[in-house]
Amino acid sequence: MARPKPISGFPEFLPAGRMVETRVLDIISSTAELHGLASVETRAVEPLEQLTRKGEIDKEIYVVRRLHAEASDVDQLALHFDLTVPFARYVLENSGHLHFPFRRYQVQKSWRGERPQEGRYREFTQADFDIVGSGTLALHHDAELPLVALEAFGRMHQDLGLPPVLMRLGNRKLAQGFYAGLGIDDPSAVLQRVDKLDKIGPDGVATLLREQLGMDDAQVSAALALARIRSNDLSFADEVAALGIENALLTEGIEEVSSVLEAVSSQFPGQIAADLRIARGLDYYTGTVYETEMVGFESIGSVSGGGRYDALASDGKNTYPGVGLTIGVTRILAPLIGRGHLSANRSVPSCVLVAVDTDDTRTTADDVARRLRARGIACEVAPKADKYGKQIRHAERRGIPFVWFGTSVKDIRTGEQQEADPDVWAPPADDLRPGITTTW
Amino acid sequence: MARPKPISGFPEFLPAGRMVETRVLDIISSTAELHGLASVETRAVEPLEQLTRKGEIDKEIYVVRRLHAEASDVDQLALHFDLTVPFARYVLENSGHLHFPFRRYQVQKSWRGERPQEGRYREFTQADFDIVGSGTLALHHDAELPLVALEAFGRMHQDLGLPPVLMRLGNRKLAQGFYAGLGIDDPSAVLQRVDKLDKIGPDGVATLLREQLGMDDAQVSAALALARIRSNDLSFADEVAALGIENALLTEGIEEVSSVLEAVSSQFPGQIAADLRIARGLDYYTGTVYETEMVGFESIGSVSGGGRYDALASDGKNTYPGVGLTIGVTRILAPLIGRGHLSANRSVPSCVLVAVDTDDTRTTADDVARRLRARGIACEVAPKADKYGKQIRHAERRGIPFVWFGTSVKDIRTGEQQEADPDVWAPPADDLRPGITTTW
Repeated sequence: MARPKPISGFPEFLPAGRMVETRVLDIISSTAELHGLASVETRAVEPLEQLTRKGEIDKEIYVVRRLHAEASDVDQLALHFDLTVPFARYVLENSGHLHFPFRRYQVQKSWRGERPQEGRYREFTQADFDIVGSGTLALHHDAELPLVALEAFGRMHQDLGLPPVLMRLGNRKLAQGFYAGLGIDDPSAVLQRVDKLDKIGPDGVATLLREQLGMDDAQVSAALALARIRSNDLSFADEVAALGIENALLTEGIEEVSSVLEAVSSQFPGQIAADLRIARGLDYYTGTVYETEMVGFESIGSVSGGGRYDALASDGKNTYPGVGLTIGVTRILAPLIGRGHLSANRSVPSCVLVAVDTDDTRTTADDVARRLRARGIACEVAPKADKYGKQIRHAERRGIPFVWFGTSVKDIRTGEQQEADPDVWAPPADDLRPGITTTW
Repeated sequence: MARPKPISGFPEFLPAGRMVETRVLDIISSTAELHGLASVETRAVEPLEQLTRKGEIDKEIYVVRRLHAEASDVDQLALHFDLTVPFARYVLENSGHLHFPFRRYQVQKSWRGERPQEGRYREFTQADFDIVGSGTLALHHDAELPLVALEAFGRMHQDLGLPPVLMRLGNRKLAQGFYAGLGIDDPSAVLQRVDKLDKIGPDGVATLLREQLGMDDAQVSAALALARIRSNDLSFADEVAALGIENALLTEGIEEVSSVLEAVSSQFPGQIAADLRIARGLDYYTGTVYETEMVGFESIGSVSGGGRYDALASDGKNTYPGVGLTIGVTRILAPLIGRGHLSANRSVPSCVLVAVDTDDTRTTADDVARRLRARGIACEVAPKADKYGKQIRHAERRGIPFVWFGTSVKDIRTGEQQEADPDVWAPPADDLRPGITTTW
């Protein structure tokens, strides 16, 4: 078999890169659990007709079938393209067994047959946080998920050295109310075009609004003025008021943004801002919307987004409103690891290599390893009773900091060697697990 | 949307069941890391022709294609059906970046289009441990993976209450050498038939050996005698010797079993036995083979198996021998959780529900929650400022043991309430995380 080549759009990491990823996933999971979110995992496949209900992204779906499918196999299955659709199905399927508001996190891969490029993959890992009510869901939950995400990003920054983030907060009601107050019949059509500001700039958006929607200069100017409003305090509300539009939905939207912004910025000052340009493309958002960028790495795109949807799912009798937020794990890590910004200081979990004198005394080394492991110290026993210099190089190549010789242990970075008892000795706390290294 | 139904063969857990699974996966991962195995994750898909090279299980493969695939999409992709084939490909693809012997663990889902039944699923999670050498791999590694697996199973038994396990050890060289010594031309053909002992019994196997392979009574009787040999000490070697067969490969096999059995049983006495019937179906095993059953739950089948393969992969220049062992996570948990044997004592990670006095003082409750979380105590804030009795029932339904009221905390199981400071108070260690409950 010749050396296989990677498949474009299906990123994989070498062990040191994977260590970065497992640390990030640990932070995400443990933070979610601190906030009382329960882990859920759903199957990789859904019935095809469920995934194509929205009709928009069916081109990107991967269909799954048995190689020798029989005529009796009527179910068409496909890989999920996000974690929201499977979760909505899970909530409906299990609603009788769940307690609402139901709080869950879910870390899994999704698949989309899109053209691969940096930041966009055919297979990618996402971490989703959602809170779902039965019938109703109070607004204060909209502030909870940014707290989970910003706490997780904060630990990634402090513990692993990832870039800091800035979360932007918008609101569909605010934007729709504003456009309705401007006398525009189809606020959604305006939202869709203003959403292109980043790609085509204000002049481009102005042209679309004029030519495609027939908006007049005053309307276009007001729409662009709204999209320019940003603040990390409540002053955004005054700026909206200064535009002179009155509308009940607009007022409700302003109150929602104010409430979420106040609750989140009191714990994460400077890390969340109202940004009234944010609308997000997907139709199902009905109130709060979030987007998040890594400071200095804005070109990667939004690393975390989501929002409020008044009907995540409905079974006819009951409607389940929810608020959700996704962290794009692969979108963050594949570029940062791929460009060499993030790695680990060893390629193995082992903190200690236990050297072997002769093949006859391997059991002595095995016993040292057993005693270290019993105390939570990861280690491995040298594969061969080579000369000590060769065993040290074996450790060096893997980044293992300590080599155990008989009754002593050596820090091979400093050369310092000390007598040690495997039932007592412990490495410095920083050496116990592999450290994440950053190069910017 | 009507209530969706489960898809047969694609098991999913409710949150309490998923808690059991995450605890099992934590034990597996942390045990593997203590033994110096690095985490690897591979993509879900492989080129179809790689998966069908062996030609045997192609019927069970799930092919993946874009819903609107274009004529230019020449690559046929399929979901992997185990973690060994993707890992072999990963080793070849990255051999220049890996250090050998390369030690890795991998916990992922695989997919097979088999007819679903208890213990056999179309989507299932496996945990694989492998050690792979470049060119050669010493025999002592064959004893390492049983140590990892038995340590993980031991923690599942002690910490979570899962059943104990018994690992059985066989060896292809021993069996092949024995049959060759019996004067049989095609030892593999005998192995395949003796492998059916569990299904068709000794008389059935004897008939096959006589009728299909033309073996005489003495040969059949010797083959069945070998298959009956079991011991958890080195006495199996004497029993083999008593059968009077001489063969160099047989001798080598006996030495290998003795060596592995001695190393493993010194650490896990009574949990591993030589069982010369064990051969395992797959062709690529060339020496040591393992199988593992849960004591009292033998009907589930082998929950962990594997063995030595002298050529996991080869790129023409280099051959990579390996030894591997798999834990069938879904095979263990789906029946035990499904039958109600395993669950968790709460359906949420939260240890504390922080009660809310009035909606105006929600920020006070948020602040208590923040301070508890900062000290690693999972909590959630009550969704509504209901009467206290209702907030307590909210906690009860979820199994949350503590409710925080203002400046005191109440254990709602005992009714005991005490003054508490969120910067100081800690729950009993057993209450910090959800406990796993067992019902046999």
